[in-house]
Amino acid sequence: MKAVVFDGKLRVVDDYPEPVAAAQEVIVDVHLAGICQTDIEITRGYMDFRGVLGHEFVGTVRSCGGHEGRPLVGRRVVGEINCVCGQCEMCRMGLSTHCQRRTVLGISGRDGCMAQRVAIPVDNVHRIADGVSDEEAVLVEPLAAAFQVAQQVKLNPRQQSVVIGDGRLGQLIAQVMQSHGVRPLVIGKHAEKLRRLERMGISCLTVDEARPRNDAHLVVEASGSADGFRMAMDYVRSRGTIVLKSTIAADSGINLAPVVVNEITVLGSRCGPFPQAIAALNEGSINLDGLISGSFPLEKAAEAFEAAQRPENLKIVLRNSGGK
Amino acid sequence: MKAVVFDGKLRVVDDYPEPVAAAQEVIVDVHLAGICQTDIEITRGYMDFRGVLGHEFVGTVRSCGGHEGRPLVGRRVVGEINCVCGQCEMCRMGLSTHCQRRTVLGISGRDGCMAQRVAIPVDNVHRIADGVSDEEAVLVEPLAAAFQVAQQVKLNPRQQSVVIGDGRLGQLIAQVMQSHGVRPLVIGKHAEKLRRLERMGISCLTVDEARPRNDAHLVVEASGSADGFRMAMDYVRSRGTIVLKSTIAADSGINLAPVVVNEITVLGSRCGPFPQAIAALNEGSINLDGLISGSFPLEKAAEAFEAAQRPENLKIVLRNSGGK
Repeated sequence: MKAVVFDGKLRVVDDYPEPVAAAQEVIVDVHLAGICQTDIEITRGYMDFRGVLGHEFVGTVRSCGGHEGRPLVGRRVVGEINCVCGQCEMCRMGLSTHCQRRTVLGISGRDGCMAQRVAIPVDNVHRIADGVSDEEAVLVEPLAAAFQVAQQVKLNPRQQSVVIGDGRLGQLIAQVMQSHGVRPLVIGKHAEKLRRLERMGISCLTVDEARPRNDAHLVVEASGSADGFRMAMDYVRSRGTIVLKSTIAADSGINLAPVVVNEITVLGSRCGPFPQAIAALNEGSINLDGLISGSFPLEKAAEAFEAAQRPENLKIVLRNSGGK
Repeated sequence: MKAVVFDGKLRVVDDYPEPVAAAQEVIVDVHLAGICQTDIEITRGYMDFRGVLGHEFVGTVRSCGGHEGRPLVGRRVVGEINCVCGQCEMCRMGLSTHCQRRTVLGISGRDGCMAQRVAIPVDNVHRIADGVSDEEAVLVEPLAAAFQVAQQVKLNPRQQSVVIGDGRLGQLIAQVMQSHGVRPLVIGKHAEKLRRLERMGISCLTVDEARPRNDAHLVVEASGSADGFRMAMDYVRSRGTIVLKSTIAADSGINLAPVVVNEITVLGSRCGPFPQAIAALNEGSINLDGLISGSFPLEKAAEAFEAAQRPENLKIVLRNSGGK
């Protein structure tokens, strides 16, 4: 089958071996696969991953390895990315996204979804209603990651809340906040991206316009840059909370002294709850219009990855024209 | 009066102006003043402070600026370091240690206690019972800072807890944990300092012996070094908590990516509750033996600061022989 593979270099392969479903797994014909910052980082060496890239997808279940998957065959689905053991201490504590023996779709120990077909545990799969388009469904994974903020922090409409970053994730987080009655301020670098949020009634400032005064109760850092973290520190108040939504690399001159002096809580936040994200799409409480900036066939993965790194673009997706 | 002043250089001055008590303040004859890492940092430029150093003391109230202080005259006291307005948003929220208009004893906007006498708001003062020695009472401020960990995090005897750092603060934090039924593991660089804790039945390992396996629910970073922070990251489990008790400077190659991936909570922690610390000394539930490594007269402040920076020493105190 066709697959987008990273083996030290990004390649499109025509004869990648077909995935084989284990007893608890299904095979999904991929319709769309999203490109995430993590995928880009992987092509720069992050996680030392080798194999088929991709962890955001929507597709149709083609077959299953055991009877549990049978009712899903022919159904349109999305899938959670952490493939877990169900037995370790973290799984038993209900923290299975932190399973100690997990593999992660296209990130760690398991082929991903930028291919014609992907194998995934039946437990990871969520059905998508007919009223939700493929273009919405492919965004469930990052939308769930945005909902995770609301799981970890009590969103309070009366408290000042700031989102640093106007990219894919920052946009979704701001929208999740808005859907919880919070009126966030979004700080970004790209007037065009901010305009999408302003059209939804969300207040935005460019980095140059920002005048942080250490008075926000909650700041979500979704820029993934050390500058963004510093800006978050300038916005957050004493005893406030910074949620870190994107990984910030080392050696970037991060100063943690104000965290201590001002008794800040810094919360790392990663994957989130698929059911909430899917429910939001079913209800129409989150509007994803304008979030997909472009779509490329699998064969043009190199171009697609390039587009995903262009500052003017939000989400770029790959489509598997032969897979439907 | 005699005072230890920092004006770009550490000096002992013989003719520093006597402090004058405002209406809500008392003047305290200082018996002992402790040297803290923050004082050492200030002599290196931290906080841009100029004036009398010192924020840890025990002394006797000599006089007062208004009637509120009268019952305290002649009493032995310690004092909280944040001098607050009582009016701002943080004060009204009960977070007065984060008062937006605060001055801080010997740290910010207010002369400290390394002098024969110090002025301090009457509200900051706590009486010390006769059964508690000066050598114990002078440690109330850092002991309160250690108790702050127990205020911010639920200490759980069944959960693995680690303290990074065997210095003054690490020792006190480990003892506070032990007094809450927790059996902490302390990681330090100094066999002699660790031995003090081992004698109290606290498990210790040197940095070389440490074998972190990302399985601790709670890690308290009290080393103040980027290496200590990295060690904390290696000890903490997914969804665990790191309490930062000492300021870590910038440009030290701190990598926050694992905070996100493992959804770690990082909690900054600074000053703590004096009443708990004083109660612990009254009850004898915290043993401070061996924590004071040396005592110097005010005149020998330079030597005392040097001693406080020697790795083999724990707390160094200054005594005001003329002040009693």
